[in-house]
Parts: sequence; C-alpha cells; structure tokens
Amino acid sequence: MKIIVQKYGGTSVGTPERIMAVAERIKTYAGKGYSVVVVLSAMGKTTDQLIELSKQITKTPSKREMDMLISTGEQVSIAMLAMALHEKGIGAISYTGTQIRVKTDGNFSEAKIESIATEKIEKSLKEKKVVIVAGFQGIDEEENITTLGRGGSDTTAVALAAVLNTRNCEIYTDVDGVYTADPRIVPNTKKHKEISYDEMLELSRLGAGVLHSRSVEFAKKYGVKITVRSSFNYEEGTVVMPKEEMVEKYIVSGITAKTDEAKITLRNLQDKPGIAAKLFEKLGEKKIYINLIVQSTGHDGMASISFSVLKKDLAKALELSEKLKEELGGSSVEAKEDIAIVSAVGVGMLSSYGVAGRIFRVLADNGINIEMITTSEIGISCCIDGKFAELATRVIHKEFIEAGA
Amino acid sequence: MKIIVQKYGGTSVGTPERIMAVAERIKTYAGKGYSVVVVLSAMGKTTDQLIELSKQITKTPSKREMDMLISTGEQVSIAMLAMALHEKGIGAISYTGTQIRVKTDGNFSEAKIESIATEKIEKSLKEKKVVIVAGFQGIDEEENITTLGRGGSDTTAVALAAVLNTRNCEIYTDVDGVYTADPRIVPNTKKHKEISYDEMLELSRLGAGVLHSRSVEFAKKYGVKITVRSSFNYEEGTVVMPKEEMVEKYIVSGITAKTDEAKITLRNLQDKPGIAAKLFEKLGEKKIYINLIVQSTGHDGMASISFSVLKKDLAKALELSEKLKEELGGSSVEAKEDIAIVSAVGVGMLSSYGVAGRIFRVLADNGINIEMITTSEIGISCCIDGKFAELATRVIHKEFIEAGA
Repeated sequence: MKIIVQKYGGTSVGTPERIMAVAERIKTYAGKGYSVVVVLSAMGKTTDQLIELSKQITKTPSKREMDMLISTGEQVSIAMLAMALHEKGIGAISYTGTQIRVKTDGNFSEAKIESIATEKIEKSLKEKKVVIVAGFQGIDEEENITTLGRGGSDTTAVALAAVLNTRNCEIYTDVDGVYTADPRIVPNTKKHKEISYDEMLELSRLGAGVLHSRSVEFAKKYGVKITVRSSFNYEEGTVVMPKEEMVEKYIVSGITAKTDEAKITLRNLQDKPGIAAKLFEKLGEKKIYINLIVQSTGHDGMASISFSVLKKDLAKALELSEKLKEELGGSSVEAKEDIAIVSAVGVGMLSSYGVAGRIFRVLADNGINIEMITTSEIGISCCIDGKFAELATRVIHKEFIEAGA
Repeated sequence: MKIIVQKYGGTSVGTPERIMAVAERIKTYAGKGYSVVVVLSAMGKTTDQLIELSKQITKTPSKREMDMLISTGEQVSIAMLAMALHEKGIGAISYTGTQIRVKTDGNFSEAKIESIATEKIEKSLKEKKVVIVAGFQGIDEEENITTLGRGGSDTTAVALAAVLNTRNCEIYTDVDGVYTADPRIVPNTKKHKEISYDEMLELSRLGAGVLHSRSVEFAKKYGVKITVRSSFNYEEGTVVMPKEEMVEKYIVSGITAKTDEAKITLRNLQDKPGIAAKLFEKLGEKKIYINLIVQSTGHDGMASISFSVLKKDLAKALELSEKLKEELGGSSVEAKEDIAIVSAVGVGMLSSYGVAGRIFRVLADNGINIEMITTSEIGISCCIDGKFAELATRVIHKEFIEAGA
C-alpha cells in the first residue's frame, strides 16, 4: 500500500468548482493504486472572514475561543471534499483534528504537534477510502481545540506523512515550485527540481518561503520528501529533500530580497562585555524579532551596534533603544527605514570558496553600497539601500544562476 | 449553586450585535447568582447557507459529511458568544458537542441523545464561568459528529438541564410564549403562563409547536420545566410543566389550523380485516406521513377510508393508492387538496363533558361542514374545507377561550 499525503491550500479549494477539480486530481492518484490521505486548509478567505467576524465582537479575543472559531473553516472544506469525492464515485471520509487526535501543546493560535493517532486513518485506508483530514488544527491534553498558526496545514501534512511512514508528501499551493528568485523581479528565474531542507528553511526565514518553516523542520527530522506543486496544473514541482540525496546542486540556489525591515544603529557604546546582551535581552522581552546584527570592532573603548527589525516594530524598538542608550553609555540612536536585505542561499556555499567575495564584487560593480553583512552556514545576507533591492537581486542572480555557476 | 440552562435560537444570535445583546442578558443572570449554562444554535441562516453550499457539490450528500459540515455553525456561534461575554468582563468558556461528550446514536441528521458527560461543565461552573455549549450536535460511539435534526438545540438544552439536575430551562425563540392560537389569525389570543407537556406535544404535532417535540418529551421524562421566552424583550413567557403542578387549567388551551395537508379517499373497499393494514403499511414503506385516518362503518360489505397526507406527499400517495385500489377491491380514489385540519387541544378535555359537541355545534352554526373527525386524549381534530381554516379557528377560540370557559 503506497501511501501519499497531499495537502491543498485555501486557493486550491477556494470554491465548490475548485473542490471538484481537486477531487478529480485525487481520483487520478486513487486510480494509480495510491492510498491517498488529503490535508485541507479552509476554503479561500474563510479564515480571514472568521477573524473579521470576531472583530465585530472584540479586538482582544481569547486565543482559545479564536481557535474554536477559526478551526471551523477546515471542517467545512473537508466535508465538502468528501462529498465531491463521493459524487465522483470515490470512497472518502473526513476527519477533524479532534477525531484523529492531533495532539498539540496548549499554545493556542500557534500550537505545536506532539502526536497523531493513526488507527482511524489506517482503518479507513484499508476500507479503500480516501482519508481527508482538517489541517491547521489539533487538541491539547484537555481536548481544547488548538490551531497551529499560519501555514499550519503544511505541518499537519508532513506530520501525517511521518506517522504514516511514507516519504511521499505533496503540498499544493498557488505556485508550482521553488524558484531561484521571485519571478516578478527576475525574468530568468529557474524552477528547482530539488532543494534541500536547509535551503528551504533559510529561504523561509528570508521571506521567500513557499512552505511554513515548521513543516520543513518536521520533514527534515523525519526524512519526509515534500513536493511543492500547483493544483492548477500538472507540472512536476520542486522536491524538498535531504541534501545527501540531491542530484542537482547549485552553489547558490536562491536569491531573496526582504524589504519589510528597518535598521537601527546605536553609536559609541562602551566596548565591554554584556552590552549587546542587555540590549537584545530587552528587545526580546518586548517580543521584537531581530534579523541581522552587526557590531563594529571597538576602538578607543567604543563600539557601534546595528540591527534590523521588522518595520512594524520600528517605533517600539526605537523607543526602547533610546531608553537604553544612556544606560549603555551610547552617544546616539539612528534609524533607517528604507533598507533591503538581499540574501543568497545555497548548500553549495559550504564547499565553495569565494562566494562572498563574488557577491560583494558584483554589488560594488553596480554601485550598491553594503551597510551590513551577516553570514550563516548556507547563506550570505547584505543590508543595502532599499532602492537597490531589485537591482541587487537581479545582478546576483545573473552572476550565480544565469551564468550556470 | 442554582443552575439555569438557557437556549438561544438562530434569530437570537443572528448578528454580532444580537450576540452582544444575548451576552448582556446572560450577564444579568450571572449577576443574580445563577450558574448559567447556555446552549446556542447557529447564527441566523448559517445552517441553510451551509446546506446551499453543499448543493453546489452534490444533490445527495452523505449524511455523515452533511453533519460534519453543518455542525460548524454552532461552533462559530459559541466561540462568538464566549468572546462577547469576555468583552463584558464575564468569565466564559465554549464547548462543542464532542468536548462534553454529547453521545448519540449513529443516526446522522436525526440522532438521539443517549448521554452527556458533566465533568467539564461542572468544573467550569465551579470556576465561575458561564458555560456555552453547541446545540444540535453530538458524537456517536465512533466519535463521528452527528446532528439532532431541526430544532435539536432545544433538545440539547433540556437534556443538559436533566443531567445537571436542574428544572430551570429557558428557551429563547422569536415568540415570547405559547399562545392560545396564532395571533396573526385570531386577534384576541392569550399567552399562557403555564401549559402541560402533553398539550405542548399535541400542539407541536398539530403544527403550532414553538418547541421541538423531542425536547418536550425529554422535559416530560425528566421533569424539566421549560420556559419559552423571547430574547428581544423581558416578558415572562410560558412555562411548559407537569400538569399536576399547573395552577391555571383551561378546557381548551390551544386552537390550531394545519393547511399543509391533503385528503385522499378510497371508496367501496372490501370491508374485511387487513385492508386498512395493507394500505397504511404500503404508505409507511414509502415514508409517507399520515395524520388523520377515518374509516366509515361498512355496509353491504363495503367501506371507505379517508386519510390526510402532507401536500408534498400527495402525488406519491395518490399513485400508490391507485395501484392498491384494484388489489383492495376499491371502486375509486379521490383526492382533495384544499383542506384544513382544525384542532382544539387541552388537558381539561379529559375531565370535561361535551367539548366535542360544542365544537361541532359552533362549526355548524357558522356553516362549516366537517369532513373527518379524530380525537386523541387531549385533542379533537376536524378536517374541513380549506377556505374555512381561519374562520373555524376564530369561532372555536371565541367559544372556549374568549368566553373564559
């Protein structure tokens, strides 16, 4: 019994017609002898509409009740798809997260999956039924309904593949795979046949994530291969997989540009231990997400620290930085809102020399000044002036990908 | 701890504004020291909208999946009300039928409640929370979601009162009590302060039911007093209760007129045992609901049988009757569509003489011919020409109720 898990996102099941189309696609898999487990998101904009509805009652809803409310969206779509499959003569049964015991922690609105019971699913698969599972939802130990946060249905799908011991997991979204860059910015992008978990995670972190990070982490942990595909065509898509098994490897596999961050610089801080710790602890307490951090090498007992925060957090972060400035002995706090963080990601960097140098060179050749640089094992990020975001993406893409390096 | 169970119907929670109004009402009860358990229907027309949605997929949906689909309606309303109570500073928690184990049989779309677990409810009440329960839904022994059929939330409310050992159960609908007749037809109707379970059941059966029959049967069985009230005002409403405890007793407490039935007459059937049995068995097999049945006394070995069926079943019933006519040796089958069944209901009839005679007299005095008559322990029904429906209701109402008899 070859089990395949397929997850269809909100756009894929946005209307009754789309649900019928998804049923037709599932039918072809069932016809090929697959045991099909389907994970669904809520239809189209349902989740947003439910959130809007709640706003007519309160601006500060209880997270438990919010999860109770929005988890209805997937329950509607699974019932609809089961009916659609029946209409096409395919046996099918739908299950909520409660029914198949998707146990999570009690962290409402962003719960983490702890376990899933497989008995019901396996029994229904044995009865030759397509099993349809509500994504995004689970229950905590007191059987309160929880939700997994945005993109949580991806995680449900990967977790199901893991507990059902299959490596086959297809995630249908509105794009048909993972590209080397945003096709709206770079005309000659290529679609990957394969990409590694780590690259995918890095891309997600850098804002180019087709998949929810947690689902990729899960897939990596359990060795599940995720195929990212579109439900609107039959193109092959991109397989997210262990890098050891990959055939195609690029030095640089993706270029991203984030423009939703801003930069803060604290100048002339005392160059002594504990200064940075204090600053970022305080920012952490306020739940301000920090992406890049650069501390300049101190001289004369002074140092500067620059870091990037989401634009929406800028005011809060600035206020806090101003307060801490005196305590930390700094001379000034500066903010720059119009920045871009351009990154190159690729597992090949691990074994290639000179990648950083080539990136800096190509940016310099195009008159783009680099304001901050950070590197991770498989990525290099440069903070540049916001107006150069698209140009930088294109020139790095040309240097590494279009040149076939 | 005085527990009160309150059920609010779809109109009562039709909009976020209405939900806030219901929260305000609940707040007054919580303020009076009641432990409040609230049962909700889906908001406004939600259930109908979900049914419409399913029709875009199939005309013959699986009942299991239909229950999966429509049970989301109550889940939305309970979460919304919990948020509304929180907004007013009242502790509250919502539970689905699954969460409080409303166990039912497996008869999807018209399941019967078998048991309800009270632990979670009692725990939450002890924590001074208003407990909000999704009406209309339960789970079968395999934890499939079931629904209780139209009006099922009333039954959920009464069942909860029963298992929580309280006799206080308020059912909020769009009318503010039980009237002696339809106020749209009879101008001088009176609202009952009290009415007995049996009268309420008889009224339900005769189409004047404010409550779902099963909820009244449940209430009778467990001695729960149901107060029928409106959520749009603070009028006192009508208490449905054991007749032994009633203070006010009328001979006739309600007059109803059903105009959704039609009459079929089979003439000159053989007057021998088994003829009627055969006819009604066959009708039963086709799930045709029969209300009145009259068999004329036979002479010359011949008899006629008249019966009433719902107008929507008339064609089906006629076809079947024609087929059976020859087999049963009848001479003709006649149908009359424009009939009305006018009924008088009252526990007082049990101990009063001459009620039937007075009804027939008042109809005759107004030139209304009676085509069929049946009686139950607490009711008398007359089939008359459809055009007299309203007149008959008014004159019987005048005779018994306005005259204060």
